[in-house]
Amino acid sequence: MNKEQIIDQIRCKRSFLCVGLDTDLKKIPTHLLDEEDPIFAFNKAIIDATAPYCIAYKPNLAFYECQGVEGWNALEKTVNYLRKNYPEQMIIADAKRGDIGNTSQMYARTFFEQMDVDAVTVAPYMGEDSVTPFLGYEGKWVILLALTSNKGSMDFQMTEDKEGEKLFQKVLCRSQEWADANQMMYVVGATQGQAFEEIRRLAPNHFLLVPGIGAQGGSLEDVCKYGMNKECGLIVNNSRAILYADKSENFAVVAGQKAREMQQMMEIELERYGI
Amino acid sequence: MNKEQIIDQIRCKRSFLCVGLDTDLKKIPTHLLDEEDPIFAFNKAIIDATAPYCIAYKPNLAFYECQGVEGWNALEKTVNYLRKNYPEQMIIADAKRGDIGNTSQMYARTFFEQMDVDAVTVAPYMGEDSVTPFLGYEGKWVILLALTSNKGSMDFQMTEDKEGEKLFQKVLCRSQEWADANQMMYVVGATQGQAFEEIRRLAPNHFLLVPGIGAQGGSLEDVCKYGMNKECGLIVNNSRAILYADKSENFAVVAGQKAREMQQMMEIELERYGI
Repeated sequence: MNKEQIIDQIRCKRSFLCVGLDTDLKKIPTHLLDEEDPIFAFNKAIIDATAPYCIAYKPNLAFYECQGVEGWNALEKTVNYLRKNYPEQMIIADAKRGDIGNTSQMYARTFFEQMDVDAVTVAPYMGEDSVTPFLGYEGKWVILLALTSNKGSMDFQMTEDKEGEKLFQKVLCRSQEWADANQMMYVVGATQGQAFEEIRRLAPNHFLLVPGIGAQGGSLEDVCKYGMNKECGLIVNNSRAILYADKSENFAVVAGQKAREMQQMMEIELERYGI
Repeated sequence: MNKEQIIDQIRCKRSFLCVGLDTDLKKIPTHLLDEEDPIFAFNKAIIDATAPYCIAYKPNLAFYECQGVEGWNALEKTVNYLRKNYPEQMIIADAKRGDIGNTSQMYARTFFEQMDVDAVTVAPYMGEDSVTPFLGYEGKWVILLALTSNKGSMDFQMTEDKEGEKLFQKVLCRSQEWADANQMMYVVGATQGQAFEEIRRLAPNHFLLVPGIGAQGGSLEDVCKYGMNKECGLIVNNSRAILYADKSENFAVVAGQKAREMQQMMEIELERYGI
């Protein structure tokens, strides 16, 4: 999936919403636990209800791995279901991987060959040769952690070097030597407010994947004010506020309504900035 | 598994070798491909041949995930086989995970509850709340990336802040506020030579997990010279030089010989430092 296709989807759907599939057996409606594969049953219902209002789905690997073999099975079924029924949707494996070259190569194979998702989130700590193996696939994306949404983002990402350059800024600059805005995006937490201005100065044309709206406290309006560019340039994720808005048998309908509300807020923002 | 048990194993086996289970279907002896589960068949043979000479096994998650459901199945069987037959061995899930709190919690459940390994490698980029969820399990370990063995370790880990503190030093110092040497270890690449002296100044009592001997070019003698402490304090990993030393039907015997050679070199080092 290339950048133009993502922008087309945003214009067409009037949305830049990503639905995070953080599917937790302890939180899904209890009637689903009788299904043969409760995780997939939940995902399928959520996808069918929300697909008109979003442009991407982001399964969070932790939630599948913690169910072992059954979790991986449910993840593969979810990816295949999306590929077959909603081929226009971007699929982001939120995995935050990163290892020495030959190991990152194996992770790249996992996500881009074995599973055929469009993008994978990658952690930058181990540097260039931990990231570049993910870049050898046409139409596939690396989404590199830059400035995350959590409190711990202050621990190392904000550390300034001798020239006053913060670590997340260094990650943004160095990584642009490895790939351009057609192959790389950055994770920037919605909770980071005005840091978006700084990020847009360093990466004006890159798409940013933005978690942290909702449960984590970020504001959509601020994210757009400081982070939107002329192609939108934002993919804003929401997981919990959509997935777990309702726990009755009606959960998918309510999830669809929540996604639609977010799409409508996003449409206002797109219009505000003339997109 | 607590620190005393690890030290007892080192004294008893006269070894601080960890065998990395980077099991790659493209590299294992071809006759195993006829087995129902070639990955597990390979691991089982390697484990039976090398167990007398090592104190830990480190499955590298990437190599299992890239086989999808079958890979996870093989990984679970390998962990269960070790638990049942070699309960004295430490099992390290080399996963390099790290995410916001609720997601790290799911990864912790994956490795410490669903799979019951002893330790998991964790990436520090996202800070304290991405690491602490792994620390809530008695007898389980976080092995935090400090200074890795690859070329890309120079990109960010060596960045100096205004006070001249390098990022990996900051990781070593800050993380000691989250857990002590009874719950945390650090990854330090064997290729880092004299940096071990600096690391021992900051973390004199912690165990260090050391990859990078062999295929990556690190020297066991240097690692011991600069990194060993009075409890040994080192777990040195080797993967490829043991696993793929021979590709005939005799592969396990040769792997055992290679592990034994390493154990003998380690015994010399232990004696040299009076352990």
